[in-house]
Amino acid sequence: MKLSARNALKGKIEKITKGAVTTTVHIDVGHGIHLTSSITNDAAEDLDLKVGDTVTAIVKSSDVIVGK
Amino acid sequence: MKLSARNALKGKIEKITKGAVTTTVHIDVGHGIHLTSSITNDAAEDLDLKVGDTVTAIVKSSDVIVGK
Amino acid sequence: MKLSARNALKGKIEKITKGAVTTTVHIDVGHGIHLTSSITNDAAEDLDLKVGDTVTAIVKSSDVIVGK
Amino acid sequence: MKLSARNALKGKIEKITKGAVTTTVHIDVGHGIHLTSSITNDAAEDLDLKVGDTVTAIVKSSDVIVGK
Amino acid sequence: MKLSARNALKGKIEKITKGAVTTTVHIDVGHGIHLTSSITNDAAEDLDLKVGDTVTAIVKSSDVIVGK
Amino acid sequence: MKLSARNALKGKIEKITKGAVTTTVHIDVGHGIHLTSSITNDAAEDLDLKVGDTVTAIVKSSDVIVGK
Repeated sequence: MKLSARNALKGKIEKITKGAVTTTVHIDVGHGIHLTSSITNDAAEDLDLKVGDTVTAIVKSSDVIVGK
Repeated sequence: MKLSARNALKGKIEKITKGAVTTTVHIDVGHGIHLTSSITNDAAEDLDLKVGDTVTAIVKSSDVIVGK
Repeated sequence: MKLSARNALKGKIEKITKGAVTTTVHIDVGHGIHLTSSITNDAAEDLDLKVGDTVTAIVKSSDVIVGK
Repeated sequence: MKLSARNALKGKIEKITKGAVTTTVHIDVGHGIHLTSSITNDAAEDLDLKVGDTVTAIVKSSDVIVGK
Repeated sequence: MKLSARNALKGKIEKITKGAVTTTVHIDVGHGIHLTSSITNDAAEDLDLKVGDTVTAIVKSSDVIVGK
Repeated sequence: MKLSARNALKGKIEKITKGAVTTTVHIDVGHGIHLTSSITNDAAEDLDLKVGDTVTAIVKSSDVIVGK
């Protein structure tokens, strides 16, 4: 399946912090770029996310703010 | 001002497409990473965005989907 | 690729309205459920979206408001 | 009050998971469609959400990704 | 219907800019506070939005960034 | 840095509720306007948010729903 979301960055999970219902996933994209994603615990379990996994961080264009 | 948004990627504007009320901004982050942002024309004009400008793409963690 | 986004609804595109930089996609999920998505024209062209196409509407849980 | 958000799906709450500050609400829309919403605990308490409640899941068009 | 979205600000529409598929709505909340909302043209027409209308700007807590 | 996000409201933090991975920040904008923001604990710690701090609540136009 191809997605309409225009932003997709590949990286490796470097840290996972699991809360009561939300999980924070830290992704190392390389080149000094680190991303953070907040997802539900259900999602983290469904995807069986583990440190070291190769994942893609996906963001819709309408969710990207520009700073200058 | 420091922002709570956890994701900030520096890059250069490589293309700007201005619509009737929305502007699409294409940002080259380097390392083969290209981002797209949809903002209002008002914002694009206020920031005086031009091709070649150095900008920061900012994304809240709750807007990052993980794909695996 | 499996996504962390918890909401995925299959449907058929019933109408596409293309603007200057944004495209509105109307999706018929069946059972009287109709969805609307706003995406960039670039995305609509990349996916080659056409009326009648079977697509999936994907929504992150943090973007779902509950009304009661 | 009528909302600009174009997507509204009626359903019944089938499960509520309350965390420290966030609540995950699972909604059964029928026809095999299940939705998940992440809201603040404050909101869940204010709306007095309970399993079996009839609710509406509301999503803005700009938050709907299309997959094909 | 009561909403889970925690942020609701009443104001008057001071300007409407209609594009090809997207409408920008400018809302004067008073006290020097001005808000901008981007919605679909379909929504603007459905709500029959006009300058001077009293409206409510609604925002989910997960969409509010904090700057300090 | 100037942001493309069109909505920025100044206020004082009146309450902070810290969960396992998410923090809810309550902001008093004055004039009877109260806002709520959900951010990661990492962000709350990085910004060293405390009750009484003057902060800015920032919202992208595409995240503002209009109710009428």
